[in-house]
Amino acid sequence: MFSSSNESSSAPKKVLVLGAGRSSIYLIDYLAKKALEFGWQMIVGDMALEPARKKTEIYPHVQAILFDVFDQKQREKQISQADVVISMLPTVYHIHVARACMRFNKHLLTASYVSSEIRELNIEATHKNLLVLMEIGLDPGIDHMSAMRVINRIKGEGGKVISYKSYCGGLMDRQSDDNPWNYKFTWNPRNVVVAGQGMVKYIESGQYKYIPAHQVFARAEQIDVHNFGKLEAYGNRDSLSYREAYGLNDVKTMLRGTLRPLGFCPSWQVLVRLGLTDSVHRIENTGSMTYRDWVKTFLSESDLPLEAQIASYLGIDENSEEMQRLKWLGILGEEQIGLPNATPAEILQHVLEKRWKLSPEEKDIIVMQHEFEYELNGEIKQLVTSLIVRGEDNFHTAMAKTVGLPVAVAARLLLEGKIQERGVQIPVHPDIYDPVLDELEALGIVFEEYEVVRQPVQA
Amino acid sequence: MFSSSNESSSAPKKVLVLGAGRSSIYLIDYLAKKALEFGWQMIVGDMALEPARKKTEIYPHVQAILFDVFDQKQREKQISQADVVISMLPTVYHIHVARACMRFNKHLLTASYVSSEIRELNIEATHKNLLVLMEIGLDPGIDHMSAMRVINRIKGEGGKVISYKSYCGGLMDRQSDDNPWNYKFTWNPRNVVVAGQGMVKYIESGQYKYIPAHQVFARAEQIDVHNFGKLEAYGNRDSLSYREAYGLNDVKTMLRGTLRPLGFCPSWQVLVRLGLTDSVHRIENTGSMTYRDWVKTFLSESDLPLEAQIASYLGIDENSEEMQRLKWLGILGEEQIGLPNATPAEILQHVLEKRWKLSPEEKDIIVMQHEFEYELNGEIKQLVTSLIVRGEDNFHTAMAKTVGLPVAVAARLLLEGKIQERGVQIPVHPDIYDPVLDELEALGIVFEEYEVVRQPVQA
Repeated sequence: MFSSSNESSSAPKKVLVLGAGRSSIYLIDYLAKKALEFGWQMIVGDMALEPARKKTEIYPHVQAILFDVFDQKQREKQISQADVVISMLPTVYHIHVARACMRFNKHLLTASYVSSEIRELNIEATHKNLLVLMEIGLDPGIDHMSAMRVINRIKGEGGKVISYKSYCGGLMDRQSDDNPWNYKFTWNPRNVVVAGQGMVKYIESGQYKYIPAHQVFARAEQIDVHNFGKLEAYGNRDSLSYREAYGLNDVKTMLRGTLRPLGFCPSWQVLVRLGLTDSVHRIENTGSMTYRDWVKTFLSESDLPLEAQIASYLGIDENSEEMQRLKWLGILGEEQIGLPNATPAEILQHVLEKRWKLSPEEKDIIVMQHEFEYELNGEIKQLVTSLIVRGEDNFHTAMAKTVGLPVAVAARLLLEGKIQERGVQIPVHPDIYDPVLDELEALGIVFEEYEVVRQPVQA
Repeated sequence: MFSSSNESSSAPKKVLVLGAGRSSIYLIDYLAKKALEFGWQMIVGDMALEPARKKTEIYPHVQAILFDVFDQKQREKQISQADVVISMLPTVYHIHVARACMRFNKHLLTASYVSSEIRELNIEATHKNLLVLMEIGLDPGIDHMSAMRVINRIKGEGGKVISYKSYCGGLMDRQSDDNPWNYKFTWNPRNVVVAGQGMVKYIESGQYKYIPAHQVFARAEQIDVHNFGKLEAYGNRDSLSYREAYGLNDVKTMLRGTLRPLGFCPSWQVLVRLGLTDSVHRIENTGSMTYRDWVKTFLSESDLPLEAQIASYLGIDENSEEMQRLKWLGILGEEQIGLPNATPAEILQHVLEKRWKLSPEEKDIIVMQHEFEYELNGEIKQLVTSLIVRGEDNFHTAMAKTVGLPVAVAARLLLEGKIQERGVQIPVHPDIYDPVLDELEALGIVFEEYEVVRQPVQA
């Protein structure tokens, strides 16, 4: 049941996909096939026509258009003619799309976090019988859905969740030994560089816990991922805010973290301690500096060689893995930076994009693991569910698949009239997560699960 | 030559002092005596009538009033009737006073840093022949004036300043051994607690240097203050911005720092590393927490006693001076915090205000030192000037004297028509700093100076 003004039972449904970047390939593919099957119209718009054309050229029934989110007339025209809008645009643009969706009575789906601006549209969306479905990607997205399915199952059995830890990371598949970080960018590089710049909040054994930004990577923990091996996890900014959405207000432990290869976090902490991840302060003269000179600006003047000075300053061995990873990045070398008046984070991203670029034959991998403890019939039980998805190549990535497919599946369900939730939502309701997770399983995105009976509760 | 509208050669001059807090005692005293001598009218206004009355009761010719900066009518009435306005109000209120001064053509003096809002008044002030004299306290204030007198003298002799380091601190006079920090608050506690929360910028040997906020206290250096002894100094936020105002655009080294007792900075760094100085994030439930529980929220769950856990986490000895100072603060004890929903910095300030409170018999001390290197006739010379001012008691503090008297002296000179600078200014011009420093010397605020010939310049 759509409320859109131009809807009629005879007119074909129309889906508008905004953004044809790397994360849209599986999404477009899935929806294009469904559009053919159900006779829907489909338009894919992007700031550049080429990526939209490239991703749709094998589907003659899909129209690729140049779409400029800043062009209000075009924005409103395209949105007013659609039934369901998907925004895969950068997060900051969603609100402009969302406001147009409200104006023309259209449903909206995105894989991004609910911003306060988007949240404010809840009353209007509900009143207009519209769904603004946010956080329906991987993380956030699959994490919510897969966790909620387990949480509601435990509750349904009469159990009570007392601990919930959830980890997710986009990594490179282990194929080559040439990269001592065992890491390359498989997603937005900026998000990786500015990670951990706020205080981390979580709850552990009933105690609130706070980690100051500059200690987040120092406090990383080792996690054993089922059927995969050991990884490191650092805490996400706010693990407390989902307690209410998940119905876990009494949970004793709740922590959401990001996974990295072993050794990554202590090495990244070296960059943090040096000040190289700062995204606020602009550094003068970086245009004509070498990376080595730039790193020197974060140390006092010294007669020691830079390498020895860093090791001494940070109290690490000059031949430690951390120092070797630092050297491998090239930031102790004489290469020119070539970015004028940049922040440290911009410079770091600039050099990392060269070093951490997936080559065409390299594959990425998505790892997600939930760890539940719950009480059932007087026993404490532990349940672990984990997801491992491998990419096909550096274009058909596991990241694109796991971010894009949940959005596409939810859009398909919405176009079919199979989702009744309205207002600004995240996918924590069974009428969304059940059919989406079922379809994702059919598409090869499958969680494994194991449970261990641990110990009797002390009376 | 005043441009104020109600000025006539016969009417008595009128000075309005806003703010009768701790820092105003010497200022009011000095101006009250001058007002009597020159036949000026003087009004002292404060949000509370009592402090204004108390500081003016021995001067029947001075009027104490209740002054509410938020009461526009009163604000404009009082300011419109004055010739010179002094604002010793909290920094954020200066702009409201300054705008009224512009509107009614009045001069303004404050001891605070020039904000961007105040800077924007420069054209209007210049056009209206008004002086807005900012940064005419101790630091900023006496530091600018005493440095500029030396810098201009060196230039006048044909020399070139190549290095300028300046340090200032408000400390407690060493009288008792009961405080392992050798420190108590002699000034705004909040400024002490949130110090070092931005990146520090300076220049050393021609190289820009940046210290990330979380390393500022770790990078403190030991300074030997002439006729005083050793202190620690941590870098102030931006040492670069005064290069232009000081006429030192080619200086190779420029650093401004804050002085603390030996051992203070590494101990404060422990608080920083724990996350206890964060002034942004509010902590839930702090109203019912003990200090010990609060500190625990910044550490992971552990079976170790808290003291051992902190020592292990930070890599310091459990019996180290840092740990002893931490324990002395009482933040590892079971006392209730009693501040609901507070930031770590607010909680830390709350406990420090109890521990670091000057008792009536205790005295404060102001220490300032400038270190210059300059080239003259082919020689590199070093010049050190230093200032030590001791307080009389915990009311007649060295801080109140050195902050208030420069403002008062400059206001007196302005009322006498002896300062010709106009616009938004800081005291770097000889027609301000020369007469102010001369008068401060007569009032006992005297710099000592010594010079050492070091080494010939290598040709």
